Amino acid sequence: MTKIVIIGGVAGGASAAARARRLSETAEIIVLERGEFVSFANCGLPYHISGEIEARDALLLQTPESFRHRFNVDVRVFNEVIAIDKHKKEVTVRRVLTGEIYQESYDKLLLSPGASPVKPPIPGINSHYVFSLRNIPDMDQILSSLLLNQPQHATVVGGGFIGLEMVEALHHRGIKVTLLELSDQVMAPVDREMANMLHQELVEKGVDLRLNTGLAAVTELEIQPAEPEATGEYDKQIEHTNTLELMLSTGEMLKTGLVVLAIGVKPETMLANQAGIELGARGGIKVDARMCTSDPDIFAVGDVVETEDFVTALPSLVPLAGPANRQGRIAADNMLGRREIYRRTQGTSICKLFDMAIGSTGLNEKTLKRLKLPYEKIYVHTASHASYYPGAHPVTLKLLFNPTDGEILGAQAAGLDGVDKRIDVLAVAQRARMSVYTLQDLELTYAPPFGSARDVVNQAGMVASNILKGDEAVCHSEELLLGASDQIVLDVRNPPELEASGTFPDAINIPLDQLRQRLHELPKDKEILVACQVGLRGHVACRMLIQHGFKARNLTGGFKTYQMVTTKF
Amino acid sequence: MTKIVIIGGVAGGASAAARARRLSETAEIIVLERGEFVSFANCGLPYHISGEIEARDALLLQTPESFRHRFNVDVRVFNEVIAIDKHKKEVTVRRVLTGEIYQESYDKLLLSPGASPVKPPIPGINSHYVFSLRNIPDMDQILSSLLLNQPQHATVVGGGFIGLEMVEALHHRGIKVTLLELSDQVMAPVDREMANMLHQELVEKGVDLRLNTGLAAVTELEIQPAEPEATGEYDKQIEHTNTLELMLSTGEMLKTGLVVLAIGVKPETMLANQAGIELGARGGIKVDARMCTSDPDIFAVGDVVETEDFVTALPSLVPLAGPANRQGRIAADNMLGRREIYRRTQGTSICKLFDMAIGSTGLNEKTLKRLKLPYEKIYVHTASHASYYPGAHPVTLKLLFNPTDGEILGAQAAGLDGVDKRIDVLAVAQRARMSVYTLQDLELTYAPPFGSARDVVNQAGMVASNILKGDEAVCHSEELLLGASDQIVLDVRNPPELEASGTFPDAINIPLDQLRQRLHELPKDKEILVACQVGLRGHVACRMLIQHGFKARNLTGGFKTYQMVTTKF
Repeated sequence: MTKIVIIGGVAGGASAAARARRLSETAEIIVLERGEFVSFANCGLPYHISGEIEARDALLLQTPESFRHRFNVDVRVFNEVIAIDKHKKEVTVRRVLTGEIYQESYDKLLLSPGASPVKPPIPGINSHYVFSLRNIPDMDQILSSLLLNQPQHATVVGGGFIGLEMVEALHHRGIKVTLLELSDQVMAPVDREMANMLHQELVEKGVDLRLNTGLAAVTELEIQPAEPEATGEYDKQIEHTNTLELMLSTGEMLKTGLVVLAIGVKPETMLANQAGIELGARGGIKVDARMCTSDPDIFAVGDVVETEDFVTALPSLVPLAGPANRQGRIAADNMLGRREIYRRTQGTSICKLFDMAIGSTGLNEKTLKRLKLPYEKIYVHTASHASYYPGAHPVTLKLLFNPTDGEILGAQAAGLDGVDKRIDVLAVAQRARMSVYTLQDLELTYAPPFGSARDVVNQAGMVASNILKGDEAVCHSEELLLGASDQIVLDVRNPPELEASGTFPDAINIPLDQLRQRLHELPKDKEILVACQVGLRGHVACRMLIQHGFKARNLTGGFKTYQMVTTKF
Repeated sequence: MTKIVIIGGVAGGASAAARARRLSETAEIIVLERGEFVSFANCGLPYHISGEIEARDALLLQTPESFRHRFNVDVRVFNEVIAIDKHKKEVTVRRVLTGEIYQESYDKLLLSPGASPVKPPIPGINSHYVFSLRNIPDMDQILSSLLLNQPQHATVVGGGFIGLEMVEALHHRGIKVTLLELSDQVMAPVDREMANMLHQELVEKGVDLRLNTGLAAVTELEIQPAEPEATGEYDKQIEHTNTLELMLSTGEMLKTGLVVLAIGVKPETMLANQAGIELGARGGIKVDARMCTSDPDIFAVGDVVETEDFVTALPSLVPLAGPANRQGRIAADNMLGRREIYRRTQGTSICKLFDMAIGSTGLNEKTLKRLKLPYEKIYVHTASHASYYPGAHPVTLKLLFNPTDGEILGAQAAGLDGVDKRIDVLAVAQRARMSVYTLQDLELTYAPPFGSARDVVNQAGMVASNILKGDEAVCHSEELLLGASDQIVLDVRNPPELEASGTFPDAINIPLDQLRQRLHELPKDKEILVACQVGLRGHVACRMLIQHGFKARNLTGGFKTYQMVTTKF
């Protein structure tokens, strides 16, 4: 009989407990959870705050009782592990409600403590109007502050997943929101020009977006509402005033009613570290592919561990629910003597922001640059389904690949429709080590309401293959901005499009359908950077020019990408 | 300078013409199209009939003029090729409008004539109220018949893609519809129990569905509406009567106003056959992977050709738009001296039917049985996204795999949401030759509005892997119906579910959460077929039973699949 002790009863821990029982009826399984809840839907928290998920109970996937009945697992909530003795193979537990301390032995120990929100040491950060959002009690506190204080303005600090979801949630409740983001873009997993689509969406929805801006200090204001006795206006609702004044890193001051900190999370490694379990380069617990730590009887899963990046095999921190769940299952197998391995992390993720979705898998361009890895990139803007069928919207897809062998390095997509599907398809293709050539051959579902005979992903595969085969050279928006004297920019769009969308600086305009007749207008001694709206007509023009002896490259993604790259927020 | 002649200017032909020009500015490219239109959206035709696509022009993707201007392609509509002389390398063309005949030589010839609707030799089939739907003129005729005759009832013959889309289109216009289908299911690419979800949807929407029923004869009725002069009721609209009487294969008679034949299509091989080009076993033109026919200068693409099935490599006819477009591109490459190959067909497809979508990729169970190939099958019914987030609907997924090595043989899915995405993911996985084991590891996009931490496809991978590893044996609904004396059926659902959903015949009911305490009620000398609602709790119960020394198998897909298998329409 194996005795398994699991620290942390959410995501990875809960999934390990259930799997362990399915594998062994005789194992003793204890889950120690310092909080009140196990197995809750942490990804759903912002949506209960917004009101979209009405019932709070909907977020409680399992209870200690349901775990006991179904899986015969001893779930102890309000039991916090305060020390691990890996030599004696026991943990010291404190009953949170009584302060009582006890020891619990284990054969195999699983660490699933998660990661905690970063709380920077800023003056005033401990105000009762400043919140983080990690669990049900955090959510309850935000909700009761919203109900009690009825703030008309809120400030979200940090533009990651939770930050963006909280912006939407607060906006959904009719609250005016300011979003502070220290870097030049929200949503770090994607590159800045892709994030610009989110910036656009935020601004359009009336969110006060402040990039390159951090929070420097928080001051609670003394609230002195005018009482009815003083004003004589008994039937007038009390005007809710802002309770906080924020000093921003820019020196600006901002009055607000509530602050949500969503700067990021850091792995909860203190307990492991104190027990002498090895940590990795990124500050998470180091594990092997079996999810085993430096101690052969201690395993770890979820937000607390480092896993290998899919492309580089470098250690990475990927605090996402999918990997945590799979790791829990794998750890359970290995703790019970099986051999299962976790196969690297692509970091596939997605975020909904109002009407927009943005998703990614694999490496982004920032990381490729930082690691000095060779890459090429292309953009397509292709309809989510047959453009003649109602409801189609462009999917903007950025594909990063190895310029030598076509290996898929990463993909990012944004749009109103069909983003999740394209990132899923590319995540599977990347995991299968398909090259961009094979993306052309993918047979995807097509009927007018669902896709196109040539899907977004097929299209991206064709564009990338054209480059690899030397059928087309691309140029990038960044180059157009340089305005080199040995280059000219040829815009092959029709004049009405230029008026509607905007123009490239110093570009010559010859519509594609006139180009074959007007080739004599172009110089042969200069390189022609060809541009259209999304890159398709530019490709046709480029092929024509090259065959007629011109030097030409096509602007990948056309004017749409150019706008994404050059717009400042 | 290569002279390329292309017969047929839709899908494959149009895509080959455009690609050929991008590859070569000097090639002479002629498209001969016997109809009035090239490059129209044939998949959109039913949606213009329904009124969902309002503008007829939206279906015309290119015109002869746009082809000429952009691609310098000589598109000749109303030019029908009536003979091919492969020795002289020329085609004989008839100008349809004048009857004039001329010859056109070629260096490379591409056949893209498509497939024509099957029209069975039934008495009365040539009535003016009986239609097929292949092209714009067919669509126009149906629309004008609908406008002129205002039928209140229509009959669709054949429950394939076009048949189902036409049922929906006519229903959308407020017309009562009868659907005749000669086999025991609509939508041949999926298996009958999956098609039952469509049967259910049809019946719920008020469609008069008649399976196992064909059309035997058509009689035009003499219409004698009561004239206002006779009735004296001048302000009353004339009641539109049915214009046809149908005799069905069952002997029943049916009055209707309009018939749409959608029985299927057959490759238009007459021209190729007369020219001595080799046809294949399935009646299509035989081509190699380069899309080259038995004549080295004649290529063929689209609905007219046979391609290799992805799993079996057997010749197959796959009249779908995606393959046609890719083949056109590949043929153009090869005609111009490159070497590109077409990589087998999975037949990935999808159909929308009212609120439901149904899709598939790879082989179905019927085919696997017919070919006597070894397979195992599982079903899952998993929420399209996090079930606590609004708008989630179950995706019913059937996964067929090799019971020895886990090779993915085929997949089918149906539901209200997220069907296209799961079939796309599985189509990529199959193309990558991933096994079902790897499906567990797929990292797919997850946020509550888009998916689950454990997606439908991950879930299916886990269930299949459990079987392959011997952690669980499954049983199928068909076995439950046999009622063998050495087996008992154990239903582990809660009593209220039995009341709400229905029960298995002769089953014992012990809710899962009581099972561990009530094991003594079960026999050890009989095999226990465990069943729940969708198969998840059954798995937990099965694992428990096996470890306690019982013989047990889990009903894959649970009661939901049982209902799909056993319901008769």
